[in-house]
Amino acid sequence: MGDLQRDIDDLPKNPANFSPLTPLGFLERAALLHPTRNSLIHTSLTFTWAQTYHRCRRLASALLGLSVTFGSTVAVVAPNIPAMFEAHFGVPMSGAVLNTINIRLNAQAIAFLLGHSHSDIIMVDQEFFSLVEEALKIVAYKSKDKFKPPTLIVIADANCDRESLEHALQRGAIEYETFLDAGDPDFAWRPPQDEWQSIALSYTSGTTSNPKGVVLHHRGAYLMALSNTIVWGIGEEAVYLWTLPMFHCNGWCFPWTLAAVCTTSVCIREVTAKEVYTAIANLGVTHFCAAPVVLNSIVHASKEDSVLPLPRVVKVMTAGAAPPPSVLSAMQQRGFRVTHTYGLSETYGPSTICVWKPEWDSLPPEAQARLNARQGVRYVGLEALDVINTQTMQPVPADGTTVGEVVFRGNVVMKGYLRNPKANEEAFANGWYHSGDLAVKHPDNYIEIKDRSKDIIISGGENISSVEVENVLYQHEAILEVSVVARADEQWGESPCAFVALKLSIDASDQGRLAEDIMQFSRSKMPAYWVPKSVVFGALPKTATGKIQKNVLRAKAKELGAVKKSRL
Amino acid sequence: MGDLQRDIDDLPKNPANFSPLTPLGFLERAALLHPTRNSLIHTSLTFTWAQTYHRCRRLASALLGLSVTFGSTVAVVAPNIPAMFEAHFGVPMSGAVLNTINIRLNAQAIAFLLGHSHSDIIMVDQEFFSLVEEALKIVAYKSKDKFKPPTLIVIADANCDRESLEHALQRGAIEYETFLDAGDPDFAWRPPQDEWQSIALSYTSGTTSNPKGVVLHHRGAYLMALSNTIVWGIGEEAVYLWTLPMFHCNGWCFPWTLAAVCTTSVCIREVTAKEVYTAIANLGVTHFCAAPVVLNSIVHASKEDSVLPLPRVVKVMTAGAAPPPSVLSAMQQRGFRVTHTYGLSETYGPSTICVWKPEWDSLPPEAQARLNARQGVRYVGLEALDVINTQTMQPVPADGTTVGEVVFRGNVVMKGYLRNPKANEEAFANGWYHSGDLAVKHPDNYIEIKDRSKDIIISGGENISSVEVENVLYQHEAILEVSVVARADEQWGESPCAFVALKLSIDASDQGRLAEDIMQFSRSKMPAYWVPKSVVFGALPKTATGKIQKNVLRAKAKELGAVKKSRL
Repeated sequence: MGDLQRDIDDLPKNPANFSPLTPLGFLERAALLHPTRNSLIHTSLTFTWAQTYHRCRRLASALLGLSVTFGSTVAVVAPNIPAMFEAHFGVPMSGAVLNTINIRLNAQAIAFLLGHSHSDIIMVDQEFFSLVEEALKIVAYKSKDKFKPPTLIVIADANCDRESLEHALQRGAIEYETFLDAGDPDFAWRPPQDEWQSIALSYTSGTTSNPKGVVLHHRGAYLMALSNTIVWGIGEEAVYLWTLPMFHCNGWCFPWTLAAVCTTSVCIREVTAKEVYTAIANLGVTHFCAAPVVLNSIVHASKEDSVLPLPRVVKVMTAGAAPPPSVLSAMQQRGFRVTHTYGLSETYGPSTICVWKPEWDSLPPEAQARLNARQGVRYVGLEALDVINTQTMQPVPADGTTVGEVVFRGNVVMKGYLRNPKANEEAFANGWYHSGDLAVKHPDNYIEIKDRSKDIIISGGENISSVEVENVLYQHEAILEVSVVARADEQWGESPCAFVALKLSIDASDQGRLAEDIMQFSRSKMPAYWVPKSVVFGALPKTATGKIQKNVLRAKAKELGAVKKSRL
Repeated sequence: MGDLQRDIDDLPKNPANFSPLTPLGFLERAALLHPTRNSLIHTSLTFTWAQTYHRCRRLASALLGLSVTFGSTVAVVAPNIPAMFEAHFGVPMSGAVLNTINIRLNAQAIAFLLGHSHSDIIMVDQEFFSLVEEALKIVAYKSKDKFKPPTLIVIADANCDRESLEHALQRGAIEYETFLDAGDPDFAWRPPQDEWQSIALSYTSGTTSNPKGVVLHHRGAYLMALSNTIVWGIGEEAVYLWTLPMFHCNGWCFPWTLAAVCTTSVCIREVTAKEVYTAIANLGVTHFCAAPVVLNSIVHASKEDSVLPLPRVVKVMTAGAAPPPSVLSAMQQRGFRVTHTYGLSETYGPSTICVWKPEWDSLPPEAQARLNARQGVRYVGLEALDVINTQTMQPVPADGTTVGEVVFRGNVVMKGYLRNPKANEEAFANGWYHSGDLAVKHPDNYIEIKDRSKDIIISGGENISSVEVENVLYQHEAILEVSVVARADEQWGESPCAFVALKLSIDASDQGRLAEDIMQFSRSKMPAYWVPKSVVFGALPKTATGKIQKNVLRAKAKELGAVKKSRL
């Protein structure tokens, strides 16, 4: 049979039967198929798919008129506005790499990112121009003679005041629409030469060290875009609300997903529960993605800010942190259908999904929420997911109790970290991408995260999952948000310390009584050694991506000193 | 920026972030996610996804126990039974290429295919064992000394009589279940080393010359499997009925699609309108694929064979020939929602789709059917589709009238024809795959096939699309099926000749009156030069894939001689 093998192999790639995979072609198809359908709605501004395609080609063409070449980086500092969506197509159409920057970072952090990414073109929303200006001063100071001022393109938004725009224009920034006008609306963009070519660069939040630059390629972006539609069942009749920031891991690849299914999306500058409910009520929104903190604010929104009952079932994809079952349950009760997913910037956003099983339909809401709070199984576009013993590199048994590290393998795993060989070596050891998250595998093959490795509390030699303690505390009626970290303990080595943000309706005057009440509640619901020995009240510190900063809380716990040995 | 470019390029593929694309992994995922859900139902036989995964691994492992090596070909001659589905996974899991053979072919044709594909293992359904035996005698006779008898695996089916099975066993065939028993249910299959590796080989029907062997690769099968789910919106809650033969272009890649979405499918040995209606009524069927001839039989089924109204909307994907608008319209009226697609074996099955536009909802049924009878736009997984002038290679204008050739480009275009360099050169000329189909492009960018190049009738220097004449004739109440070909004509060079199969209810005794009536009808509905000058009654000859054999009809028209010059 060697002959046949040779014959079958003797059929080479040619221009008709091989194209590098890229999500950019989805936009061309959307414009061809639905030229007059709305692509984007942003307050009174609307665009059609034909317009968006023209605008993205203008952007690519105008960028090529500047210094952009293959492999250049174009940074964007903007909230969820149409220009941010356009950048996801226009920038890579020019051959450049899109570097979205978190608008919640401070100037110092942005300076690090701009310096590290070598971005010499920056698109910036008018509101954030001063922030970028400040960041650039830091970059200039650090790089001294080598500093070459980047080209600044300021994006005007009618929803902002005139002042910041004028300031930007005075500083020599080019207005975005003027910039587009210089581009060719029929620019003949080309797919990348190689699907391994980079499409985007996103920085991790870097709570403990310098942010790492996660590089994604066209192949992965294409595959993740399609996977999103399949696992979530989002089709062209949907209306998608941009609650999840596009600067957060390219909005989990949703700009490309929405083009693939030709779905209209709605932009909002600021995500509040009121804005979300209003968009659902007035703009026909059927789908949105959001971190659990957003779900929490939706669940706890005041009556005036809510529009209930929902006019239709609204599908929500959540990821970014393990959602407390109580929040999931409350969402379901309000008519939201929550799909729980999990992933990291390094895996193009969510790449595992807690697929809802029909047999769960008949369970009580709490049981449903508990099952749905798990991280689930691999996305259809991910080739392998497992929980392994980091000593032996072998999978843990699917017993729901043995803890190991979550590892990924496949085409929706990042290309690597930019200029960070040491981090790459660690991340890609032994043929897996190592997430650093600790989980168990249940008998139904669903994984469940127990904690980040560093978030495990070791008390009297026993491991305590801070997430599990938090999940119980979320059931307490006074608690809006809670985060549990290890605090030094004279007797036990470490013991759980709960940082609690109370609901607005709660009288916080007697904190001692409240703390005692919470501990009492805990004792009735969890093993004694899990019960927080300390409860601290106040707003919880968060990263720019909305994650609770456990490192800050750990520092606070350290300041508190060790829990004294209790007298008998 | 050269530095950054180098840095970003300096992130190589590694085992954690690159896997060759293959649809085989979908099965592993389905078994992990839904181990107890039914994968296949075949009369009283059912399998779960866990069982199917075990059985496919057994098959792969057992094949490796024979002479199978990378690039071997394993032929399967079977209707839509579970073993046929299993072969789509088990055969490529062993590294071999799956060669599905049309059971409607005669021994002579099967002999050609077996000889050309070098299949030395043949899986054959018991009913077709004698046919394969006969074919092998022809192969043996032709190849003389070089003939090496292949290993025959006979698939028993409780729905067939015992005799043919016993015959096969007497001839030394291995029973399929016995063969599986020898395999390892936990066989550690591996994805292909390269996603360009061949997965399947299918032969074109070859009405005019020897069949050509279309070779497909893992990459294309993966992408087409996902595309099917996205363009059709088929999800895991669906129940799919196997009306479309799996030997026809791998059932348009649906075995892989169904595994990707973990959907249950129902097998039937013989496709009749009654079987289709029964499966819809009794087994919860929601989706099926079928050629227009099947739709025709569903529409014209007797009252006793039909179950109407349908218990739910049933989604139908049709392709394989342009469906007459009258058939589309009748299907819609019965509650089927027909998605019209178009493609060829060379494009992994359908790779264009007539996407239904919301604005069509308010049109009269005939207008809807006319719009929906068009071939539409490219699949999300196809990179380019156009209609070109074959002289200039330039796209025709989107004016709905200029005719050109339909051409394809992208990842769901075949690897090439096996051992046929000349055909490959022609097929892949100028960076396109050339379909040989003639079409126009409408102002809304939807393409519409007018004919195969060889099916155009040239009458008095005017081109007549035989398809358009057929579409009008299908509106005639007496006509069940019609095919129009060119007949020599003394006056006009060629003129249309209609071959008509009448409905059973029609009294066919006075054919002269019927012919006159059909011509009268035509004169009221089409330009005079389109009106068939000859009408011939009788059953229409069909290929093994159910396509009307225009070449046979052309030969018949030739026998009729030229239409005489009509006297004034």
